[in-house]
Amino acid sequence: MAFDNKLPQKSTGLSDWYNKAVLRAELADYGPAKGTMIFRPYGYGVWELVQQELDAKIRARGVENAYFPLLIPESLLNKEKDHVEGFAPELAVVTIGGGEQLEEKLAVRPTSETIMYEAYARWIQSWRDLPVMINQWNNVVRWEKRTYLFLRTSEFLWQEGHTAHAEHKEAVDVQSWAMKTYEALYRQVFALPGYVGKKSEAEKFAGARQSLTYETLMPEGKALQSSTSHDLGQNFAKAFDIKYQDRGGKMQHVWQTSWGLSTRSLGGLIMAHGDDKGLRLPPKLAPIQVIIVPVKMEAALLDYCDRLEAVLRQVGCRVRVDTREDERLGFKINKWELKGVPLRIEIGQQEMESDKVTVARRDTGEKLPVLRSDVALAVPKLLDEIQAHLYHQAEQFLRENTHEAVDYHEFKRIMAGQKGFLRAFWCEDSVCEAKIKEETTATTRCLPLDSKPEKGVCVYCGKSAGHRWLFAQAY
Amino acid sequence: MAFDNKLPQKSTGLSDWYNKAVLRAELADYGPAKGTMIFRPYGYGVWELVQQELDAKIRARGVENAYFPLLIPESLLNKEKDHVEGFAPELAVVTIGGGEQLEEKLAVRPTSETIMYEAYARWIQSWRDLPVMINQWNNVVRWEKRTYLFLRTSEFLWQEGHTAHAEHKEAVDVQSWAMKTYEALYRQVFALPGYVGKKSEAEKFAGARQSLTYETLMPEGKALQSSTSHDLGQNFAKAFDIKYQDRGGKMQHVWQTSWGLSTRSLGGLIMAHGDDKGLRLPPKLAPIQVIIVPVKMEAALLDYCDRLEAVLRQVGCRVRVDTREDERLGFKINKWELKGVPLRIEIGQQEMESDKVTVARRDTGEKLPVLRSDVALAVPKLLDEIQAHLYHQAEQFLRENTHEAVDYHEFKRIMAGQKGFLRAFWCEDSVCEAKIKEETTATTRCLPLDSKPEKGVCVYCGKSAGHRWLFAQAY
Repeated sequence: MAFDNKLPQKSTGLSDWYNKAVLRAELADYGPAKGTMIFRPYGYGVWELVQQELDAKIRARGVENAYFPLLIPESLLNKEKDHVEGFAPELAVVTIGGGEQLEEKLAVRPTSETIMYEAYARWIQSWRDLPVMINQWNNVVRWEKRTYLFLRTSEFLWQEGHTAHAEHKEAVDVQSWAMKTYEALYRQVFALPGYVGKKSEAEKFAGARQSLTYETLMPEGKALQSSTSHDLGQNFAKAFDIKYQDRGGKMQHVWQTSWGLSTRSLGGLIMAHGDDKGLRLPPKLAPIQVIIVPVKMEAALLDYCDRLEAVLRQVGCRVRVDTREDERLGFKINKWELKGVPLRIEIGQQEMESDKVTVARRDTGEKLPVLRSDVALAVPKLLDEIQAHLYHQAEQFLRENTHEAVDYHEFKRIMAGQKGFLRAFWCEDSVCEAKIKEETTATTRCLPLDSKPEKGVCVYCGKSAGHRWLFAQAY
Repeated sequence: MAFDNKLPQKSTGLSDWYNKAVLRAELADYGPAKGTMIFRPYGYGVWELVQQELDAKIRARGVENAYFPLLIPESLLNKEKDHVEGFAPELAVVTIGGGEQLEEKLAVRPTSETIMYEAYARWIQSWRDLPVMINQWNNVVRWEKRTYLFLRTSEFLWQEGHTAHAEHKEAVDVQSWAMKTYEALYRQVFALPGYVGKKSEAEKFAGARQSLTYETLMPEGKALQSSTSHDLGQNFAKAFDIKYQDRGGKMQHVWQTSWGLSTRSLGGLIMAHGDDKGLRLPPKLAPIQVIIVPVKMEAALLDYCDRLEAVLRQVGCRVRVDTREDERLGFKINKWELKGVPLRIEIGQQEMESDKVTVARRDTGEKLPVLRSDVALAVPKLLDEIQAHLYHQAEQFLRENTHEAVDYHEFKRIMAGQKGFLRAFWCEDSVCEAKIKEETTATTRCLPLDSKPEKGVCVYCGKSAGHRWLFAQAY
């Protein structure tokens, strides 16, 4: 039990703070194999809330859930050239099955394009069979040697949506809808502002025609690619021969999209909002939104707490009473602060006898007196305020850490110092992009969708450039 | 599109009927690697309903969901001797990761005891940390060369619950609660009666002290082990050194349980209830409970259908209007019968102009006139009746196919003929059990929990026996 031990300061050692906060809040633990992690109940509970929110939005668009096999024959993976080149170095490969050496090796899915599209090719015959819109919630494996809990792990959990359409326009609509859905989820539920934009040719998904991304900013000034949505064009349709007969009787290749959001998002959530005391969970993703702590384990107090709990549960709050007998009050307060529960209500003799309770906000540290008779109204309102306040703080941070660089000298200075997002003209030549990465470790994050054409010169080569791209160092 | 093609007769070729029904109803499809399958949206939708029902019951018991890694180092799997012996022949093994030969091979989890208990050993220190009660919804791999959709596949989906307790009695309580939960789920939701009992030493889970099972009966007279719940005793606690300090300061090993229900259950559901026209889904597991079929695609008709749909949705029915333009009415009727939708309402000019609609029951084939004004009351009631009727039919089948065998001659005759469950005295010597299996392919399914001690002689060896066990051939 390590709740009494202070966390390292977040501002002076982010990764040390992060690892300890995640472990001590019992969000996650390390798995025995390299690069793997355990999602403990508290951390998995956050993911279940993400799933609830996102799954409802996906279904509302008419996308259906399904499940495809984990193990992909190598020959299938090899069908789309760019795709296999992108993923081959990261594969975990099964070579033994049922005690025998396999004739064909099986990759543990790093993503499901290939195994899904082999089936799509069989299922799609006519324009009547389109669109096909399927989503999966599953686990994928991309080999990592060093674990960074949630943020970089060999196995992670995600949803991957895969659609096939008769027209390119429909596919583009779905790609855009998916990114808008992610953006709304990040802003409204994760309380994480960010930039939406398109990826460069070098940074797009392996096999895609074009990728959209949502990029958020972490405290050290590094970007986190928080979800992506791809226009696959007809690349996979041609590789997997997914054709339909159109209304005129002609055979056509379909147009496809894929889009995903993973448990990586929880890493961003924790890192962005946390403080020196631990997590600060936005109420919409807090498995426990209100913790009621009786100062003593006495029957009358516990009874009072139970009734308070019932009142809050009735108005839809996720609330719990801490009835552990073996922890001191101070220990419990630290524990719930560490775990980032948005509101804490301590109940003692005094509270029970008065008509007020004191509600402690995790985000600001404020303690607010609330009339007992107002609790059912005041608490949900406070939760909304906390959600809004965390967003506001993150937005301010993002704004203050988005810079402009007019020349490469300034570009290098910012990337060596305060970091953050950097808007700069780039000629869109991948040679400049590679040189910038080599010299500053910053990569192109995206061309924001709302960026307007401008006249400028590439920050690296000085050739003419029509847009300012966003650069950053990234996880 | 094969809905016009008749299915093979269920009674004359069960497995042929089953495979074709599953494929044509679009519940599932074959995966490219041996033994794998695809859960298509309609089949996955049934699983999601099972998950909803069961997950709520698991949470209500205080068990929390979490997620542990897919890949298990071989050294961990080897720690419990019986366990590894049981699972070694079925493993899929990763030997290559990130392009390199791995130093230690990683098994794709066949079940998660070992990887979870390695963590439990770290998390559990004191009696205060107990009980630990964790459930996972995940995928597991046990190698199979031949796929039997849902029923026998290399990869399947399931939940696995794993608890650790200070006292053996608590563990036994949880083991028993889990089996009662499964039993209630099967009877009330799957509409599948069965027998609850304990497994023999030879048939129990690899590593368990004692296993409970729920056994259902399939049309050909073969038993399906439908879920199991294990008292693990201290076997894993000793192998993984999971110890806690008790209230007196003494170190003790914990007592453990594990229990699971898998997508195999869907195979039983389809096989038990289906008929020559296809599936007959019990309403509680039907992704679509009511299908409304307009006989023509005319605006007024469609509008009427939409209003009917809204009324039924309001009373909690899962309802859909079939608006496909490219299928004839007869084709649609066959399609929804094949897919096992419990109720079908066809709407034509006549229905629209009268105050009655005709509701067709999938289970009995009856067509019932229902006053338009009564629909919101009548349809939910009909769904309940169908649920009860399917259970009743399955119960009758189970009763008629549970036999007694007084001697081995009769035992063999039944197992060579009508099959089904067979109650017979057995001396509980594993030599007799093995001989019976060798000679009749029947195995001990369980000793029913409600079986009373009796005096008899072993049906095989004639030695004295105190209980009648249930035997059957099994999937």
